[in-house]
Amino acid sequence: APNKKLLVLPGDGIGPEVMREAGRIVGWLSRRRGISFDISEDLVGGASIDVHGVPIRDEVIAQAREADAVLFGAVGGPKWAGVGFDVRPEVAILRLRQELGLFANLRPAIVLDPLIDSSTLKADIVRGLDIMIVRETVGGIYFGEPRGIEDMPDGGRRGVNTEIYTTFEIERVARVAFDLARKREGRVCSVEKSNVMESGLLWRQVVTELQAREYRDVQLSHMLADNCAMQLVRNPRQFDVIVTGNLFGDMLSDLSAMLTGSLGMLPSATLGTRDAQGRRPALYEPIHGSAPDIAGTGQANPLAQILSLAMLLRYSFSMDAEADLIERACTNVLASGLRTADIMSAGKAKVGTGVMGEAVLREL
Amino acid sequence: APNKKLLVLPGDGIGPEVMREAGRIVGWLSRRRGISFDISEDLVGGASIDVHGVPIRDEVIAQAREADAVLFGAVGGPKWAGVGFDVRPEVAILRLRQELGLFANLRPAIVLDPLIDSSTLKADIVRGLDIMIVRETVGGIYFGEPRGIEDMPDGGRRGVNTEIYTTFEIERVARVAFDLARKREGRVCSVEKSNVMESGLLWRQVVTELQAREYRDVQLSHMLADNCAMQLVRNPRQFDVIVTGNLFGDMLSDLSAMLTGSLGMLPSATLGTRDAQGRRPALYEPIHGSAPDIAGTGQANPLAQILSLAMLLRYSFSMDAEADLIERACTNVLASGLRTADIMSAGKAKVGTGVMGEAVLREL
Ligand SMILES: CC(C)[C@H](C(=O)O)[C@@H](O)C(=O)O
Ligand SMILES: CC(C)[C@H](C(=O)O)[C@@H](O)C(=O)O
Repeated sequence: APNKKLLVLPGDGIGPEVMREAGRIVGWLSRRRGISFDISEDLVGGASIDVHGVPIRDEVIAQAREADAVLFGAVGGPKWAGVGFDVRPEVAILRLRQELGLFANLRPAIVLDPLIDSSTLKADIVRGLDIMIVRETVGGIYFGEPRGIEDMPDGGRRGVNTEIYTTFEIERVARVAFDLARKREGRVCSVEKSNVMESGLLWRQVVTELQAREYRDVQLSHMLADNCAMQLVRNPRQFDVIVTGNLFGDMLSDLSAMLTGSLGMLPSATLGTRDAQGRRPALYEPIHGSAPDIAGTGQANPLAQILSLAMLLRYSFSMDAEADLIERACTNVLASGLRTADIMSAGKAKVGTGVMGEAVLREL
Repeated sequence: APNKKLLVLPGDGIGPEVMREAGRIVGWLSRRRGISFDISEDLVGGASIDVHGVPIRDEVIAQAREADAVLFGAVGGPKWAGVGFDVRPEVAILRLRQELGLFANLRPAIVLDPLIDSSTLKADIVRGLDIMIVRETVGGIYFGEPRGIEDMPDGGRRGVNTEIYTTFEIERVARVAFDLARKREGRVCSVEKSNVMESGLLWRQVVTELQAREYRDVQLSHMLADNCAMQLVRNPRQFDVIVTGNLFGDMLSDLSAMLTGSLGMLPSATLGTRDAQGRRPALYEPIHGSAPDIAGTGQANPLAQILSLAMLLRYSFSMDAEADLIERACTNVLASGLRTADIMSAGKAKVGTGVMGEAVLREL
């Protein structure tokens, strides 16, 4: 088999620190599991702005396109708060999504038993929580035109953004959700604001028709986005897979993540369309962001980055055995009582980034 | 003083049931506090669709315009799920907001000590919670043009909505938030997605400039909407007043409400602009909706509707004494152990709508 091409983009803040630990797991994969990688690494986000003046270079986009998978850290921080709207660090991730066609963001929200007390919700509400949010990521109001800020005759200004969803875009992401549901509990909840937005009304119709045509074995329900935010707090375990647009997905996936109380544990995948050769562009990243407040202190939790690597193995390389091993190693390390600061609780052993990464490696 | 003109719109589902209890409090206000009301009542929502074919008649809009305040129940239900997009029950509330210029929706989220266990969040996280969300309600993506669903050349369809915010609209709602903060803890958090939406970027700039010009005594912070959803779950008491646009406000205010675990307790106000005569259009409604599943069973909690009346007295008539009395009566009734089904907990006395309303009246 040809070497697996990985592009590693550590980014800013704690990104490089947690990526180092994921890198050690990559080392283990090649040494012990005989998987050969071609790894390239580059700057992204603020780190790229500092050196190149832009959050991501065209060459890096091109490399990402060539890669079998991208492993991403995190971008942003107060240092770059003042840069222009067009070159802010987030543009790196937006461009990667857009130019690689990474339209489906998979955001698991899982509560592991040893971490149940990290949640601000009562244990009875979140015990065993396991939901998957599928968020559309290359359409909707994030990219719709017209957009911008313009001067008005009265001396004021107006800011405009446009939400657009097409049948094609809705079907494509809904398929991802239905396919995932088939491997889980077989239930999809589609979320929009069809009571006030026509784009949401179309969303509901298209998802309904697709289910009737191709996914009769999957149970489909619909929920308004405001109600979904409430239901996630009231009884999150009612959900299996949630599918929704870019903007609602942004909020609902972060909300779901916070229900677990352990953001430092949660990976994500963003997937594109499989081409004729069977290659599918894909990017994997922890959801926690660059956490500038603890960057450089060695406190960051590397598990979300390591679990992002596990997702990469599972979704891009179908290496379920290796993904399982890594996921189990992480759970075992937690069960043994090790905790980074973000998930620390009474009676546990507080460790830093390196010790946690080392422990996972030893467990493997 | 001239009689106070009240328009009462009970609506659908449990709306009429809880409105009956609020009506008894209105009776008490005139008998015991010497406040004279001119009250008119009309159909709205599904009830109006059934009789008139539209969710609200122009005459009712005109009456609402004439009134000193509108007391609203709730609209909607499965019975009207199939009506067209233009005549669905929600249009009643959207038209009232739009045509009366009710631009500022005030959504308190308060945890009363006797109900602290109703929350799915740990008591330590929500004890004493008292936040106020100010949501813009006549602009943004709810009303922006172009909008609609159109056929595309490829045979598919596309749904379009437009988010627009002007300097004027942002300043006007931000002023409401800053003014409220002055009577509270003096802190406003402004919420948008300025990292991906220009309308959010303008929002942030305008709020920042307004604070610098007119509200230097109020502390202003900014938060992205996805982070705000997380922070509300992580540590909701960090907030005093939150100000945000129509769509984010819809989700964040419902999320905040659910943090309390007692939706049946929460009132809301939606306010317009004071005219030259000092009159300000205003609508007051419980946040719970029409709850078709329990309509007609006599189980509904009337307290949110009664507390909406208290808000009406406070904001539209500056009758703080009466508002205080009613609010205190509600708290006392809860302290005495009465509970409707929605907030029932072990060791309390479960009562229906009428008994609860009666108890508040007796307490007064
Ligand atoms: C970085 C930012 C543009 C991004 C978004 O809003 O999509 C982030 O919040 C996310 O969810 O990945
Ligand atoms: C009824 C509906 C149009 C409305 C909205 O989305 O604004 C409701 O959810 C609300 O929050 O008042």
